[in-house]
Amino acid sequence: MSRKLYDLAGADPERRFSPYCWRAKLALAHKGLDVDTVPWRFTEKDAIAFSGQARVPVLVDGDNVVFDSWTIANYLEDTYPDRPSLFGGAGGRALARFVNNWVDVAVHGAMIRLLVLDIHDHAHNKDRGYFRESREKRLGMRLEDAVADRDQRVATFRQVLEPMRQTLKAQPYLCGDAPAYADYIVLGAFQWARCISAFRLIEADDPVALWRTRMLQLFGGMPGNAVGYAA
Amino acid sequence: MSRKLYDLAGADPERRFSPYCWRAKLALAHKGLDVDTVPWRFTEKDAIAFSGQARVPVLVDGDNVVFDSWTIANYLEDTYPDRPSLFGGAGGRALARFVNNWVDVAVHGAMIRLLVLDIHDHAHNKDRGYFRESREKRLGMRLEDAVADRDQRVATFRQVLEPMRQTLKAQPYLCGDAPAYADYIVLGAFQWARCISAFRLIEADDPVALWRTRMLQLFGGMPGNAVGYAA
Repeated sequence: MSRKLYDLAGADPERRFSPYCWRAKLALAHKGLDVDTVPWRFTEKDAIAFSGQARVPVLVDGDNVVFDSWTIANYLEDTYPDRPSLFGGAGGRALARFVNNWVDVAVHGAMIRLLVLDIHDHAHNKDRGYFRESREKRLGMRLEDAVADRDQRVATFRQVLEPMRQTLKAQPYLCGDAPAYADYIVLGAFQWARCISAFRLIEADDPVALWRTRMLQLFGGMPGNAVGYAA
Repeated sequence: MSRKLYDLAGADPERRFSPYCWRAKLALAHKGLDVDTVPWRFTEKDAIAFSGQARVPVLVDGDNVVFDSWTIANYLEDTYPDRPSLFGGAGGRALARFVNNWVDVAVHGAMIRLLVLDIHDHAHNKDRGYFRESREKRLGMRLEDAVADRDQRVATFRQVLEPMRQTLKAQPYLCGDAPAYADYIVLGAFQWARCISAFRLIEADDPVALWRTRMLQLFGGMPGNAVGYAA
């Protein structure tokens, strides 16, 4: 097969916890496109230098090299237009970009203070120094301090999800009657957590939890069967 | 003309400040549908009792009576499919519901603590008692106390807009190359503010401010020419 995705891995090469890589894997599955994933660690910049930058996901699709999860989603939509749509039209594509930014800013922003130490603890040994240093600089505090009050802080995360919760009371998926790329963007955030942490992010009866349960069963259970925790 | 929209008004009957009514007026304009707006005050429940509920907007379109801004947008899209689309397809419609909830919860939630006293001060005299009592109960404090720290609190509002700001750095409108219903939902929030308050919500060089300037010029300047402030 000529299709490859460089996919962030932890100490266990099967532990794949990047939310951005999850977006790409779910988009490929939605399009019905097989892919070989290549485990990659934060410090293996040389392995993806051919892409001209230093972050994953990187998709190699025949002769095409595509990086950045949003660019990959658009590439797949435009390159494989006869397969199921990721966006459901031009209006859906434009607003999926807004959801992408909402997750990057608001959802990830609230999650990082719950998860950052668990990420560190599951990272490959050779990545931990880089990870701790870069994240402590960004957060302005030690990783241990960042998560110390997470039992209280989780309420803020749950409040951030309220617009999604209200939406899921009216329709089964963010994208309507069936899941599509905006759903995968949010699932990527939950997979980020699920693959490295047993911390309970949402209550079992939350409409977002019920949506997540349905999402985990997609593609033959691919997201639900990933190495991680049953949180 | 047989089309009428009941539209929340202040002491000045031409001051029309409901964000939900703005959504409906902008949706009608997008569809190129003329409408007579009828000024309505919070306490005039009898005037719209024919709709079977007590809130505006209420659209009377020939024999059809439609209330709730989201229901009105969907009614217009489905009833006038040959006119410019509000959603740009099924994917856009589904995600517009998410934007609708994001604005209702996150954007309005951050704005109310900036604006609630200005709303009170521009309401019709007969509405002020009802408005103060219901909002003070909801906020758990006096209106004056709710807005006392707004010069500091505005930073929170600006942070809430970050996903939209990031989106507008990549495309001119939330809905892509041209404005559509998701843009009108957010503009409704800004019109809510603009019609009753001189308080500066965003800096002039904010991408959201530049978007708002373009939005105010739509439909012959209809939103920009509304009775209000040039904030």
